[in-house]
Amino acid sequence: MMDIDAVKTYLTGLQDRIVGKFTELDGKPFLRDSWDRPEGGGGVSRLVEEGNLLERGGVGFSHVLGAKLPPSASAHRPEIAGRPWEAMGVSLVFHPRNPYVPTVHMNVRFFAAKSPDADPEKAVWWFGGGMDLTPYYGFEEDCAHFHRVNRDALAAVDPQLHPRFKKWCDEYFYNKHRQEPRGIGGTFFDDFSEPGFGQSFAVMRAVGEAFLPAYVPIVERRRDLPYGERERDFQAYRRGRYVEFNLVWDRGTHFGLQSGGRTESILMSLPPVVKWRYNWKPEPGTPEARLYTDFLVPKDWA
Amino acid sequence: MMDIDAVKTYLTGLQDRIVGKFTELDGKPFLRDSWDRPEGGGGVSRLVEEGNLLERGGVGFSHVLGAKLPPSASAHRPEIAGRPWEAMGVSLVFHPRNPYVPTVHMNVRFFAAKSPDADPEKAVWWFGGGMDLTPYYGFEEDCAHFHRVNRDALAAVDPQLHPRFKKWCDEYFYNKHRQEPRGIGGTFFDDFSEPGFGQSFAVMRAVGEAFLPAYVPIVERRRDLPYGERERDFQAYRRGRYVEFNLVWDRGTHFGLQSGGRTESILMSLPPVVKWRYNWKPEPGTPEARLYTDFLVPKDWA
Repeated sequence: MMDIDAVKTYLTGLQDRIVGKFTELDGKPFLRDSWDRPEGGGGVSRLVEEGNLLERGGVGFSHVLGAKLPPSASAHRPEIAGRPWEAMGVSLVFHPRNPYVPTVHMNVRFFAAKSPDADPEKAVWWFGGGMDLTPYYGFEEDCAHFHRVNRDALAAVDPQLHPRFKKWCDEYFYNKHRQEPRGIGGTFFDDFSEPGFGQSFAVMRAVGEAFLPAYVPIVERRRDLPYGERERDFQAYRRGRYVEFNLVWDRGTHFGLQSGGRTESILMSLPPVVKWRYNWKPEPGTPEARLYTDFLVPKDWA
Repeated sequence: MMDIDAVKTYLTGLQDRIVGKFTELDGKPFLRDSWDRPEGGGGVSRLVEEGNLLERGGVGFSHVLGAKLPPSASAHRPEIAGRPWEAMGVSLVFHPRNPYVPTVHMNVRFFAAKSPDADPEKAVWWFGGGMDLTPYYGFEEDCAHFHRVNRDALAAVDPQLHPRFKKWCDEYFYNKHRQEPRGIGGTFFDDFSEPGFGQSFAVMRAVGEAFLPAYVPIVERRRDLPYGERERDFQAYRRGRYVEFNLVWDRGTHFGLQSGGRTESILMSLPPVVKWRYNWKPEPGTPEARLYTDFLVPKDWA
């Protein structure tokens, strides 16, 4: 049986636990900004800017409701257009200050469209989510660790999921106009309901629970590495790719901005300082060149 | 009679003249980067980075050809899908270093789809273009000057055009997700062929010729005003809106990136250094607040 309250309780708890851990790691408290949506629902944005660890980081929870699902939101399932719907999720992006600590994104979400005659058997729902890592300077052990934690977390629910979700992630987080992956991937899934509510919810929780063990050890290993202007400059340049992906290709961002979502919460994902330079390429043999040749290529990292 | 060669000659000459004038104003020479497009055509990108006046500025000419027009490029004229086509234009964005000098954009373009049986009478073609100004710190006399030059240039061809093209500009350069104009407007037109080839070409030339007289006096008045970190910071923050517009809403950018255009030439429009900050608002009564209250509102500036 679909239990929306259980999903909501899980998501708000996950937001609290992640913010708690990163408040401890950063030392600077996250702001809390609650907002309401005129059409129904709202959210809580938690974020830190100019922190010790995070130059900009946001963890958003939102729960939005509508009386009629717009056709644009149900293009692949036209039968649910016009139904009452709700969507909830936790979405985070952390942009660390130190260029040796990768940027990370994680999202878990749930969508439900009620049946027109309130018959719960006819409700349509699905889960989605994933996480992906975007290093500026790559470390093989970090990539392997991130993917292993994701693999093992999903394998505990169903060993067949990880290969599928990893491939889906490589395909989704891809800057087509650069023919370049956004980072070193992770997991991505959407529109997931096949094994039934309980098991699908378990898959979403597996991703949510994997976030801290996948990312925190990388932060701890890299946060004190010394860096200079050269590394900061490359980080600012590469962050441009993050902006390009989120504003040009990311369906969630695009749909949110074009459909009247809360702009400042959606754009918490953008980096604090970004640079664009014409046709810049790193010198062969440099650590910056290694990012392209050794890391921004789909690999079986785990 | 449609004369594509005359359009091309005009456009390459315009690029040269604008680059010549700004090389003189900046003191740093523009790079020249020629490129070919595998499917046909190519372009010449001229740009300067870290100049004395321009922190980043690009003037691109492109002439691209294709054997079959994709349906996505002809949604409003389905009858020309599949035809051989060509498109050419000059597009520029200048991001000055001094926050008192506004960012400017200008574009003039021509599109033609040949008739399937090579009958020139059945060719479909149109002109488009415009320019708009994006100040960080507003000056009423600059806004009035920019709009007056645009008005007078168009009035010399047809006095009815300017009110229509100004309104079109206000509507086009609008960040819907912020409910905020990109800047103080200017002129915009597209799909323009009504008065016939000769007169339509004259309208495009009027816009092209208006660029230097509309913008250069503003540059000369403001380029030596002293500024500090506060103004640079606000400029970097506001440049974020420019990125958001270009990557989320601008049809040319979006279509170019999604259809395999030359990424580095398309993204010459992005600013060199950009900052994002959560939910930031200027203190009431400051010059930064005046930008929002007194300038980022549609007005009859001329």
